[in-house]
Amino acid sequence: MTSVAYKGRAALVAGGLGFIGSNLAIRLVGLGADVTVVDASIPGHGANAFNLDPVRDQVRIVGADLRDGERMDVLVRGQEVVFSLAGQVSHLDSMADPLADLGLNYASQLSLLEACRRSNPHARVIFAGSRQQYGRPQYLPVDESHPLTPIDVNGINKTAAERAFLLYHEVYGMATCALRLTNTYGPRMQMRHPRQGFASWFVRLALEGREIELFGGGVALRDFNYVGDVVDAFLACGADDRALGEVFNLGHARPVSLREFTEILLDLAGGGSSRDVPFPPERASIDVGNVYADFSKIREALGWSPRVDLREGLALTVEYYRAHYKHFW
Amino acid sequence: MTSVAYKGRAALVAGGLGFIGSNLAIRLVGLGADVTVVDASIPGHGANAFNLDPVRDQVRIVGADLRDGERMDVLVRGQEVVFSLAGQVSHLDSMADPLADLGLNYASQLSLLEACRRSNPHARVIFAGSRQQYGRPQYLPVDESHPLTPIDVNGINKTAAERAFLLYHEVYGMATCALRLTNTYGPRMQMRHPRQGFASWFVRLALEGREIELFGGGVALRDFNYVGDVVDAFLACGADDRALGEVFNLGHARPVSLREFTEILLDLAGGGSSRDVPFPPERASIDVGNVYADFSKIREALGWSPRVDLREGLALTVEYYRAHYKHFW
Repeated sequence: MTSVAYKGRAALVAGGLGFIGSNLAIRLVGLGADVTVVDASIPGHGANAFNLDPVRDQVRIVGADLRDGERMDVLVRGQEVVFSLAGQVSHLDSMADPLADLGLNYASQLSLLEACRRSNPHARVIFAGSRQQYGRPQYLPVDESHPLTPIDVNGINKTAAERAFLLYHEVYGMATCALRLTNTYGPRMQMRHPRQGFASWFVRLALEGREIELFGGGVALRDFNYVGDVVDAFLACGADDRALGEVFNLGHARPVSLREFTEILLDLAGGGSSRDVPFPPERASIDVGNVYADFSKIREALGWSPRVDLREGLALTVEYYRAHYKHFW
Repeated sequence: MTSVAYKGRAALVAGGLGFIGSNLAIRLVGLGADVTVVDASIPGHGANAFNLDPVRDQVRIVGADLRDGERMDVLVRGQEVVFSLAGQVSHLDSMADPLADLGLNYASQLSLLEACRRSNPHARVIFAGSRQQYGRPQYLPVDESHPLTPIDVNGINKTAAERAFLLYHEVYGMATCALRLTNTYGPRMQMRHPRQGFASWFVRLALEGREIELFGGGVALRDFNYVGDVVDAFLACGADDRALGEVFNLGHARPVSLREFTEILLDLAGGGSSRDVPFPPERASIDVGNVYADFSKIREALGWSPRVDLREGLALTVEYYRAHYKHFW
């Protein structure tokens, strides 16, 4: 059904040069959508022109910041679906410069919503939130009713942005919805620095045959989604009216420890090693311990479940970076 | 105890030309504190130089915006207590210009926290939140565990700012706490426009002998705090270590309807009238219905309870504006 839904439809992907945005844009092109990508290409945040290489002649790429309301008024006009994948995802960076994070993760989204309200109030607009919004879990797996008490500024800003998306549905009747993503991995993750989560960095270390440091012995449990599955969830939200005004967790039925993630990765990479180290203090203070999500709400409402298991997804990831590392290192 | 706590201590009141901030600054002067007021005096938001008239030679008044990090670094240095009453309180304005509200109610607070973290990490820093953060109550009275699902952008921004205050306690060990204020009334409310809540506007209409329109018949229940009681709560938070890292509701044991509030007010004013009218659509969409708060947490932790009942507080309010209306109309 989803594959039919996008044929000939105009879709805007904000943050479409980044990791998840580019994977989504490529899929949309494959489904026959008329795709525009908007990306501010702010250094250090994952934008990479190579990410759209497979579709470079089939998408319109516009350099603009979501906070530029006048430009966004023009860009959202005529779009049937707007996917908002723009933002910065580093928890550490959000603590080092909280006001920058506020601009990139909340003001940007509020500005996008305002542009849609002014210039295209009937568009479907979908937000990419994060399980970081929950903070340290009070119970596991976390469902969508779990209190939102984030323990870093990134989580605060994501929560504010998500709430604005839902508010614009409630107050203005706009066709918004939101996903809370868990750890996402796969082709087109940025590889230049470790501040945006361990998954990409561990892949790089493994491929370079280096040593992976497991904070606290890597015992923390996480759930991992392959990016192709995450793209499926965005496509379902963009095509199904049952998503309107809702927020959905993504997740995976089998949480794994960071140690197990690393072992699978090292096995696939055929090199590298791992070593247990204590948590550095600046990470310990914002670490959330075990966290994995209950995704039964989206499974029941939209029929989404992850289809790619961790070994298969990591194999695809390793294969991708072996072929294209020079565009990411 | 509170009265001793402030003698000779340096206190900064952000938003100290506004309604609650000026009442707090005057009280602090009376307690022997060394008081600095910082206020950006942004038009339409309640700053009024006359508010500090009783202490004009006993406070330092600085014109600055909390978002000016370099100036705030200088201003917070050496302060033992920082009371953050700055912001804009109009729910309607927050919907008309959400990005302005973001700047005034969230970016400003995050900037203040950052200045304290950099330049005075041991200061007590107290945030003024709002019961608007709860949105439409799921149960009454609302306690501090009630979900925060605000239904206007003002509530989103207040919630984000409050969460940042608590986060800076959790992550950096800073001495922060937060209050969630209910409807506050009393001397020094702005009287120029009705967008910051009905309490001040109804007082003006009554004093001018005009007609008060009661949306939906005025049946909605609210709790009201006289500003002197609210000042007591801020002073308690600034002097008691049991407040650290906590968020407290304010409230009043006897919720009253808007109709009853109006009847008491008209009686005290000796003029004016009231009329039932339907809700205008832009207000209905962000109206929260009945809402009143459970304040047992602050009563048990800090011994705070409101001491002024509604008739007494409104009598003081009417008396104040009869004497000083030319500075407010």
